[in-house]
Amino acid sequence: MSEKEKTFVLAPDSFKESMTAKEVCIAMEKGLRKVYPAAHYIHVPMADGGEGTVQSLVDASGGEIHYKEVTGPLGQKVAAKYGILGGGHTAAIEMASASGIHLVSKETRNPMVTTTYGTGELIRECLDRGIRKIIIGIGGSATNDGGAGMAEALGARFLDESGAELPRGGGSLDRLANIDISALDERLRHVQMIVACDVTNPLCGEQGASRVFGPQKGATPEMVQKLDVSLAHYAEVVKQQLHKDVRDLPGAGAAGGLGAGLLIFTQAVLQKGIEIVIEYTGLKEKLAGADVVFTGEGGIDFQTKFGKTPYGVARAAKASGQKVIAVAGYIGEGIDALYEEGFTAIFGIVPGASGLEKLLAEGPQNVERTCENIARILKLNG
Amino acid sequence: MSEKEKTFVLAPDSFKESMTAKEVCIAMEKGLRKVYPAAHYIHVPMADGGEGTVQSLVDASGGEIHYKEVTGPLGQKVAAKYGILGGGHTAAIEMASASGIHLVSKETRNPMVTTTYGTGELIRECLDRGIRKIIIGIGGSATNDGGAGMAEALGARFLDESGAELPRGGGSLDRLANIDISALDERLRHVQMIVACDVTNPLCGEQGASRVFGPQKGATPEMVQKLDVSLAHYAEVVKQQLHKDVRDLPGAGAAGGLGAGLLIFTQAVLQKGIEIVIEYTGLKEKLAGADVVFTGEGGIDFQTKFGKTPYGVARAAKASGQKVIAVAGYIGEGIDALYEEGFTAIFGIVPGASGLEKLLAEGPQNVERTCENIARILKLNG
Repeated sequence: MSEKEKTFVLAPDSFKESMTAKEVCIAMEKGLRKVYPAAHYIHVPMADGGEGTVQSLVDASGGEIHYKEVTGPLGQKVAAKYGILGGGHTAAIEMASASGIHLVSKETRNPMVTTTYGTGELIRECLDRGIRKIIIGIGGSATNDGGAGMAEALGARFLDESGAELPRGGGSLDRLANIDISALDERLRHVQMIVACDVTNPLCGEQGASRVFGPQKGATPEMVQKLDVSLAHYAEVVKQQLHKDVRDLPGAGAAGGLGAGLLIFTQAVLQKGIEIVIEYTGLKEKLAGADVVFTGEGGIDFQTKFGKTPYGVARAAKASGQKVIAVAGYIGEGIDALYEEGFTAIFGIVPGASGLEKLLAEGPQNVERTCENIARILKLNG
Repeated sequence: MSEKEKTFVLAPDSFKESMTAKEVCIAMEKGLRKVYPAAHYIHVPMADGGEGTVQSLVDASGGEIHYKEVTGPLGQKVAAKYGILGGGHTAAIEMASASGIHLVSKETRNPMVTTTYGTGELIRECLDRGIRKIIIGIGGSATNDGGAGMAEALGARFLDESGAELPRGGGSLDRLANIDISALDERLRHVQMIVACDVTNPLCGEQGASRVFGPQKGATPEMVQKLDVSLAHYAEVVKQQLHKDVRDLPGAGAAGGLGAGLLIFTQAVLQKGIEIVIEYTGLKEKLAGADVVFTGEGGIDFQTKFGKTPYGVARAAKASGQKVIAVAGYIGEGIDALYEEGFTAIFGIVPGASGLEKLLAEGPQNVERTCENIARILKLNG
């Protein structure tokens, strides 16, 4: 009896500190090939808008990674990564690459002065390359400046009462008297900014950027207060002078108010990260004709339902009827709810009690072994 | 379309320090029932002749556990466990229950003086109950006395040149001049001793009891030498006076020479532990009609091929064509070889990086979750 060859789509996220999404794909295929040596394997390394998104989109589209030296959160030079997707017209940026919390230390971090200036320089680099669409992930920021730094790098000027330029950082924005956009890069008007944003926080107040996310960036209660007042003033000046009311838009408070900044100064739409990645990796088209879809990420638990890659993949596959099997480095509480959402099965990859470092280092062989054994069960029936 | 209900045989070993074999069966069923609520589940809690064998045989035959106060390895009183199997004619003993290494501490252990006397008392207890067949597991001993202590408890007398009884323990046997079996319990002649023994060591020499197993019981190099000489002398006296030459029989060196002692003083046959358990649990009969067999134990690696439960189960099932799926708390090196031996698939149950104590405590839920997910894959095709 001749058997039609199976098609497997491999669409995992990265396993943080262990494997990139592409490495997970490779390990999955190695394991599955032991049982299905002649099957077709389609790699779709995924991300959810956070770390790994640029790599995922570049891998999926056959694009290229580039580096640009820009200004870091505290003014230091940093080599920031960005991607030009296959086709050359779309770029992908992770703001954290220029302005991220990992670029400051516990001792030096200070959300009063950290700036998104480098993120603006990255955007300008893309404009210089003739890019017409920029996908920007905004997780992991060190900043609380409403995107003013970014806008400054793109030509906007933020002036105090005497006409002098404000120092960078959210803490100075309470002295903002004038926003001069006469020199704002006009190419921004013709470029679509697709902002990967999973949060719905407004700019200010109890649910705003400063109060909710300030502390994890090092803001003391006094700083939180000052930053919240500063962003409120900033939004008011924007409303008066630029005629845009962004204060209470969902996501305005993301990335220390960079969400608001993008909405004010660029042609931006905010969209769930996983949806962007599903679209720009062409996942749905790749799912058609798949027999089984494999996904996974470092940890799967009740939080997976909130926009994480495996959930997005399962929902996309559910719509077209494929089975989805997930693997994870860590299986937490609350996974029962995931079965109704399109997951056929969920397996941990860890082979036994072991130190975390060893487990992180052995990710590939553990993914490989687990997928081989899943395939051995799948094969029981053809 | 009406579906014939599936039959699952659950035949795991215990997971050491985490779950008895019966507890593993229960957890497996809980997980599988989430997907196959109406299937038939046959529990066959297994063992390989080591720890858990008595419980396994009692559970499988609907027998009973009993306790008897006996003499421990260093003369202290211990409550030793034994089982009477369903039917009432066969008993099961683990010698370690009376004379095991866990009954001495690092400070007090001394294989020169530890005695198998309590094991003999346990055997006598079974004889008193009218037992005609005793299955005896001999792993985990603290002793190196060639089974002389056991024989003494059953009426044999070991005398020095002056006719005085020797002190107990292997270290005294070099002074053995006479073995008096006139008062040896005559019921032994009519009782079959089935000895669960996986090793092939002779009594003495480089591969003998003292040299190979003495050190792990606390023997210094000087003790090893003395004990080896003593057991050689013991075997010589047995040969001269009882006309039995056991020195070089495979397994004579097991359990500090208790293997030899059983061969000398009882109607003993040595057999691989897993084969005994497979026979007395009726596993093969229970396999007939099974769709899938689940097995497992604490750790599965290249050593599993050497008489461990999962291997025995896989071989038994291979002969009758069932699929065997194994789960383990720890998956080690060398499992690839196991697939040819009848294993369909092997899965780890650990959900992620975690401390060992937590993993041991959460064994049941991890077995349950893993089996549920295996079932979810099985069910993909009916």
